[in-house]
Amino acid sequence: MTETAAAPYAVRPGSHNALTDVAGIRVGHAQVTGGLSGTTVVLAPPDGAVGGVDVSGAAPGTRETDLLDPRNTIARVHAVVLSGGSAFGLAAADGVMARLEAAGIGHAVAGAVVPIVPAAVLFDLGRGGSARDAALRPSAATGTAAVDAATDGPVAQGAVGAGTGAMVGGLRGGLGTASAVLDGGTTVAALVVVNAVGSAVDPATGRLLGARHELGGEFAAPPVPAPDLAALHAVRLPTTSEPGTATTLAVVATDATLGKAECGRLAAMGHDGLARSLAPVHTALDGDTVFGLATGARPAPNLPGLVALQAAAADAVSRAVVHAVLAASTVTTPAGTLRSYRDVVTNG
Amino acid sequence: MTETAAAPYAVRPGSHNALTDVAGIRVGHAQVTGGLSGTTVVLAPPDGAVGGVDVSGAAPGTRETDLLDPRNTIARVHAVVLSGGSAFGLAAADGVMARLEAAGIGHAVAGAVVPIVPAAVLFDLGRGGSARDAALRPSAATGTAAVDAATDGPVAQGAVGAGTGAMVGGLRGGLGTASAVLDGGTTVAALVVVNAVGSAVDPATGRLLGARHELGGEFAAPPVPAPDLAALHAVRLPTTSEPGTATTLAVVATDATLGKAECGRLAAMGHDGLARSLAPVHTALDGDTVFGLATGARPAPNLPGLVALQAAAADAVSRAVVHAVLAASTVTTPAGTLRSYRDVVTNG
Repeated sequence: MTETAAAPYAVRPGSHNALTDVAGIRVGHAQVTGGLSGTTVVLAPPDGAVGGVDVSGAAPGTRETDLLDPRNTIARVHAVVLSGGSAFGLAAADGVMARLEAAGIGHAVAGAVVPIVPAAVLFDLGRGGSARDAALRPSAATGTAAVDAATDGPVAQGAVGAGTGAMVGGLRGGLGTASAVLDGGTTVAALVVVNAVGSAVDPATGRLLGARHELGGEFAAPPVPAPDLAALHAVRLPTTSEPGTATTLAVVATDATLGKAECGRLAAMGHDGLARSLAPVHTALDGDTVFGLATGARPAPNLPGLVALQAAAADAVSRAVVHAVLAASTVTTPAGTLRSYRDVVTNG
Repeated sequence: MTETAAAPYAVRPGSHNALTDVAGIRVGHAQVTGGLSGTTVVLAPPDGAVGGVDVSGAAPGTRETDLLDPRNTIARVHAVVLSGGSAFGLAAADGVMARLEAAGIGHAVAGAVVPIVPAAVLFDLGRGGSARDAALRPSAATGTAAVDAATDGPVAQGAVGAGTGAMVGGLRGGLGTASAVLDGGTTVAALVVVNAVGSAVDPATGRLLGARHELGGEFAAPPVPAPDLAALHAVRLPTTSEPGTATTLAVVATDATLGKAECGRLAAMGHDGLARSLAPVHTALDGDTVFGLATGARPAPNLPGLVALQAAAADAVSRAVVHAVLAASTVTTPAGTLRSYRDVVTNG
């Protein structure tokens, strides 16, 4: 399934094929004990990374995104928090800020530092299925735990961190990541938490929509001999008003030098990657939000390099979606079983 | 290639499979004599249609788009102009306004009517190849001619109107349209002018990226027995700074009752259709702009109906892109030959 022709600008995945292939970026996950929810933190280098955002879903839950408007002053962010728990999950950023403050990391003001920690949440309330489950959601302590777990090494995928309670098209969703090293050595990478009204599956074939973006044989997708298409593509368009029942979140990061507006454009390109790997997406019930980060360790790209970076960013998001779905595992809760793509394909 | 499972909410294409399947919408094309450029006008019913816009490309050329911000006052537009000619082509809207004013169509003010005519342009300067060609671009007269040619019947596709000078991925682009009638009878339709840095072709197979969105056997795509992939997917990422060298434009229209913000969201969904049928898209060199129009002849959808409408809008845009590329024809100019997808596939 390798298609190097699809992305002539992307030479290969990075060594971890993960967001942590961008030097200085660390990723940490934490789960809520007893519930299906959690938080993932993306830590920038200590002096921050230039940040941007694109909120293209219609039901977003966010924090510290307005400051990322290119017209506004602050350009550097110190972490990005992705969290389950719907709007309650925004509290996870409190714990991340506390850890960063204690480490002296943040925007320096008189006598203090203010860590800049944009955050976005997805809807997974009650997914664990127990009566108390809706209260089992990320808190500040979950954010703290995610920071403490952060590493610059391989990134766990599937039902971890913010992806713990995620669903997509009636199947279990999750968290995935991917990276690409471009001609010239610039790295661009994505981390996605897939939790969509729509589906990641091509309803005609049972294969994953994003599979055609594979880079270097990275997917170990199961064959789909006699797909149970109804089970694989169980998109349940809502029958009643249920705002906030989904949301896919992503962080795109690069080691190139980009301005704040260019980081916002990088985030916007990430939404194209969602469109190519999930359908439908960006609906009235999805709060899809993508952050863009640039560490600036490498030079600013020229215009051709910028276009290649943008295109590879979209592809990295599509690839991360595929990794997320392939890494998801079936889980049984008091409310029932959430089946994974791999389980349905393998066991019918 | 029919995949009804892909879009359970879209029962069938409308009778023309065109934007004109939305009752009251008329479409007219005009070409620039002696050059490869032109203008397409979408006329709303005489009392206007509620309008929205989503400018997601990084190099746009637009007019009367700020008024479509949901926070601003005017909600109804009387026409939308898509034009070649880069920023010069915005003049085509002058001619459209003149015709509408003469017909008494517009926003009523004391003693006058002001037609509300948003417009967006694409870059096709010099595509005809003659020395004077860059001056052969749409003017107010081209806009007038497009109004005079407008019809509520079938819509000509390919190298017509604003699609006359369009290119995509090194092949000839053009104009395409498609429609869908949803369960319950609501119609949603798209008209797209395909002129992208990126390609409409899957580089692994030579088939069109948007082909999987086919509805009811609408595409007569040629088989691709031994594709010349290099010729079919001649994406030329720029080697020098060439801003404004592309731009794909679209209008999505429905007969449902939508508010101004919902029309903007409908336009945003159209960009997902572009992402699924063109790659890359929305780059630093594409000014991709989508307008959304709602005539309000049918009731406002409930939430499930709105989500289905949004999903079908994205699909209609992908389908219109395929129609555009399949309808494009090879042309020879003093500067050389612009080959069509169909020609390359058929003749190698």
